[in-house]
This record gives sequence, structure tokens and C-alpha cells, in this order.
Amino acid sequence: MSTNKIAAIIGGGVIGGGWVARFLLHGWDVKVFDPAPDAQRKINAVLDNARVSLPRLSDVAMPAEGKLTFCDSLAAAVADAQWVQESVPERLDSKHQVMSAIQAACPADAILASSTSGFMPSELQQGAVRPEQIMVAHPFNPVYLLPLVELVPSAVTDMALLDKAKNILTAIGMKPLHVRKEIDAHIADRLLEAVWREGLWLINDGVATTQEIDDAIRFGFGLRWAQMGLFETYRVAGGEAGMAHFIAQFGPCLKWPWTKLMDVPELTDKLVQTIAEQSDAQSGMYSIRQLERIRDSNLVGIMRAQKQTQWGVGELLNAHDKRLQQLG
Amino acid sequence: MSTNKIAAIIGGGVIGGGWVARFLLHGWDVKVFDPAPDAQRKINAVLDNARVSLPRLSDVAMPAEGKLTFCDSLAAAVADAQWVQESVPERLDSKHQVMSAIQAACPADAILASSTSGFMPSELQQGAVRPEQIMVAHPFNPVYLLPLVELVPSAVTDMALLDKAKNILTAIGMKPLHVRKEIDAHIADRLLEAVWREGLWLINDGVATTQEIDDAIRFGFGLRWAQMGLFETYRVAGGEAGMAHFIAQFGPCLKWPWTKLMDVPELTDKLVQTIAEQSDAQSGMYSIRQLERIRDSNLVGIMRAQKQTQWGVGELLNAHDKRLQQLG
Repeated sequence: MSTNKIAAIIGGGVIGGGWVARFLLHGWDVKVFDPAPDAQRKINAVLDNARVSLPRLSDVAMPAEGKLTFCDSLAAAVADAQWVQESVPERLDSKHQVMSAIQAACPADAILASSTSGFMPSELQQGAVRPEQIMVAHPFNPVYLLPLVELVPSAVTDMALLDKAKNILTAIGMKPLHVRKEIDAHIADRLLEAVWREGLWLINDGVATTQEIDDAIRFGFGLRWAQMGLFETYRVAGGEAGMAHFIAQFGPCLKWPWTKLMDVPELTDKLVQTIAEQSDAQSGMYSIRQLERIRDSNLVGIMRAQKQTQWGVGELLNAHDKRLQQLG
Repeated sequence: MSTNKIAAIIGGGVIGGGWVARFLLHGWDVKVFDPAPDAQRKINAVLDNARVSLPRLSDVAMPAEGKLTFCDSLAAAVADAQWVQESVPERLDSKHQVMSAIQAACPADAILASSTSGFMPSELQQGAVRPEQIMVAHPFNPVYLLPLVELVPSAVTDMALLDKAKNILTAIGMKPLHVRKEIDAHIADRLLEAVWREGLWLINDGVATTQEIDDAIRFGFGLRWAQMGLFETYRVAGGEAGMAHFIAQFGPCLKWPWTKLMDVPELTDKLVQTIAEQSDAQSGMYSIRQLERIRDSNLVGIMRAQKQTQWGVGELLNAHDKRLQQLG
């Protein structure tokens, strides 16, 4: 009998599959429950990608892979888990049903985390028998490579359990960001939503195509944001006078009537079709599988490059290498 | 007498200095006009950074540096220039005065480009003697490393001159993005403005600090955006079903009442002070010069990493290497 730690992954889509890979390749046993007929095939495809890319981030050996089990029932998956991760579709009623089923079968001291990108933990806790066990752990795709996890407790979440969650996430190479105040969509997706909204306007008004918007990002500020965020970038851009100078210079722009930012374009069938066609023209020559591998190769290269400067994600990866070395 | 091409740089701040470095290190003679007493010192500081970092992007030798001249008058700087780049502060009346002075002294067939982040070329052309000569060439800091330039003509800009500008920008290692429709703030800064606005709300409401927002970016979607933009990332995230699936899943979120995105926080003294203090707590242990070098090292590493996959910025750098090799 294995004495390994057990993670239960409920819902095996792109995000659930990423969690499977993240835990499994860090030596956890993983039990999956997803009733979809092709869940096993999809998760194995994610694992294929992860097995190629994740070990390349480390300069030391990863632990031996844990054992992967596909379970026939949710109860069987969560019964002995220390970590239960819910990644079902974003509907509050589904989430409540799943939380209830999980809590009926999982250990009372397990971490029960949701991958929700939109809901607040207090919403997920509604009607729960043990609300203190529930928190949000919102990861970013591809979960097996990107370090960020937004970790969000509500006022009733057990803070000792939150600390335990931080330690576990760190141990599997992630960067838990404790979101101190509950808010719809947490932090990162609020920023992404703002860009998405403006991007839709630009397409809707015929200003730019998906390709042009993507190029405006990846040949410019996207490169900056891979290592410094918004505010630190601007601190530096302010030049020798720093942040105060920058705000004095840039701040007034907020008064400009860039009104498109203030409104939501209607997502008509026509707009959806335009986006899909432009996206096909941009990337239709690659399969999704090929794009995933290009993305993963680039992400590994980008993150490894930062190990030299011991900065941001590089500092995190180097610290993780040390931990792996001590374990191994 | 030099037969080199000449770029005139009008305004030698962070952006102007970056243009100086970009042209000079690609073998152009550069003539600078900036009446500020410390312009020469500041530009030399930018050049010091650029000389360390820019050549590291190439696997072949850069051309010999051009000749740098600080001019006593604007007329002297632009007299023999093939490219005139205006980078003075963002006030339309100043821009009009400078454009007028430039056109009184520069060759009629020179490219006259503005670094403006906000104004449309047709606004800059108001009252100009040769409006067809004027276009926007909006770069991103650090100009000597980041490839993106938003190249924006108005309806009266000479399109042959625009093509010439594209070729020159490509020859100095940049990625000209032809913005086909005039719009306030072009493309990238509209997206940045959306994030900036939402970031200010998060700070204003005490949800997150500058450090937390920056971490939410650089450990997550910032890494993605260094190589794929918004739409391509989502195409992949949609999984095997691709873009249409993603929009069907994510699109409805736009209906949610994330109302903060729809309003502008007032930039009170208190908010400015909060941001400046949080930024000091985050990065005050580094000088701006140190942060610039960390940033530049990371940018070089991130961009070089992509040369392996021949994708995006990597493809661009490899093509640039070939051009440099053919010249050298």
C-alpha cells in the first residue's frame, strides 16, 4: 500500500488535466473523477505535454511520478485525499452540488480548493456542511508550467488550512498569491477581462484583427510582463524620477474620453464568427496540439532564461530546485 | 564626409534616448536636439545599457556604430536627415510647434515620425505644410530592445513613405505593426490603459498592492503573452474544440456586473501616494539603474529563448541575424 500523498482531481478538462500533471509529476498519487467518456484520453494528452516540458524547468531530477487512478465515483476519488481540486464548469449550482458530494466523502481535514476563475469562496461555501474547508485555488493554463495560483479564502475559511495549502503549492513548484479580499474574478482575470473587452471592441470596430492585437502584445508589453508587472515596468519607465514622475505624466490620460473602455460590446453571432475566422487565418495552419508544444517550449525557454538573473520566476525555479535536491 | 544615413532625434527622454540607441547601434549617424541641460548625460546612460544588451540579441556582429552628434538647434539636427523622430511631451500644441519647426528645416522626402502614444496622425498633421510626410511611429520602452513599433498613417500620409518606414524599422531590428485605422492611443496602449485602470481600482479599493498585481501578471499571463497574444492563447486554452468553444465558454462572463471596469477611479493625491509607497516597498531596494539592468537581462534572455522555436520574436531575431550577416 502506498503511503504517498493523494490529490483528488474532480473534473478533467484543460485545467483539471493540468492539475493532474502538476501533482503527479511531483510525486503525488492522483485520483481523477470525470464522467465524460473521453476524459482519460484528454488527460493523457495533457500528461504527454507535461512530461516533456515540466522536467526541463528543473536542473535537478524530479521525484518519481505518483500513481494515476481514474475512479468510477467521486466518493472513491476523494475518500483518502489530502487535497481535493474542483475544476468543473463555471456554474454556481454545479459547483454547489459538487462541493456537497465532495464533503460527504472526503476527510474533514482535507484542503478543498476550487479552480473557479469567477466565483468568490463565500459563494462556493453557501450551504456547505464545513465551509471552513473550502477555498479558491485559481491556476493558469498550462497549469503544469505556469506558477501562479490565486489562493483566496473567505472570512470563514480555516487560515491554518490556507497556510497548509500555500506550503503544498510551493512544494509542487507553484507561486501561491494570497488574495486578501474576496472579489469577483479575483485579481488576474479582472485584468484579463479588461483587455479582452477592449480587444473585442477593436475587432468589432474593424480597427485590428486578432493577429494584429496579438502582435501588439507579444512584440511589445507582453515581453515586459513576463518578468516585471505593470507597476514595476512603469516605475522603471518613469526614468530616474521613478514612479511619482510616471504617474504625473501618464495619470492625466485617464481623463481622456477613451470611452470604448467603458462599455461592453455585444457578443453577436457576427462578432463571434469574425473572431473565429480571424483566429483561423492567424493560426489555422497549426493544430492545437502543435500550438501547445510551441507554447510550452517557449514558456520553458522564457522561464529558464530568468534563472540566470535570480529574479521573479527565475528565483522561484531556483528555490524549487533546491527543495527538490534536498528531497532527492 | 560620412555617407551614412542620418536619423534626427528630437527630444531625448527615455523614449528619445532609446531611439538614439536603436539607430546608432545599427550604424546610422544620429543627430539629437534636446535643450534640456542634462539630456546628453541621460542619453549616454541609455546608450550604456543598450551597448551591453542589444548586441546580445544577435548571433552575428552588429555594424559599426554611427556617429552621435548633439546639436544646438533643431534645424541643424534635421537638415540632412532621412528619418526624423519626434519624442517631445504629450501636449498637442507642443507637438504642432515642433512639427512646424522640423518641416521648416528637414528634407521634404524625409520620414517624419512621432513617438506619440495618444494622438492620431491626423491630429499631428493639423496646420502642417506637408501633412503627407507625417506619421506615428510609436515604440515601447526599452526602445533599443523591444521590437514593436505601431506605425500609423492618416488618410493623407504618403503610403510610399510609410512603406519606406516599414523597411527602415525592419532593418534596425524592429517589428512595424501597421495600424490601419486611426484611433486614440492606437492599439497597445488601449489595452494597457484598460489594465492600468483596473489596477488602479484594485489598489484604490484595497484589494491588492502594486506588488500583488505585478505578481499576478508576471507569474501568470505575462509569461504567456511574451510569446502568444490574447487571442492565440485563448485559442489554445479552448482545447481541441478551439476558439469557438472558448468564446462560448468565456464570452458570457462579459455579461457579469464587473462594474469597476466601467468607471474611472479618481486619481486623488491619496491614491497617488498609496501607489508610490507600495512601489517603494516593492522595489525601493533597487535603483532605477539596477532595475533597468535586471529588466534588460531578462528581456534578452526571454527573446533569445524564442530563437530556438523560430516563433514570434524568435523568428524576427533570426531573420534580423540573416540580414546583418548579408550586410557584414
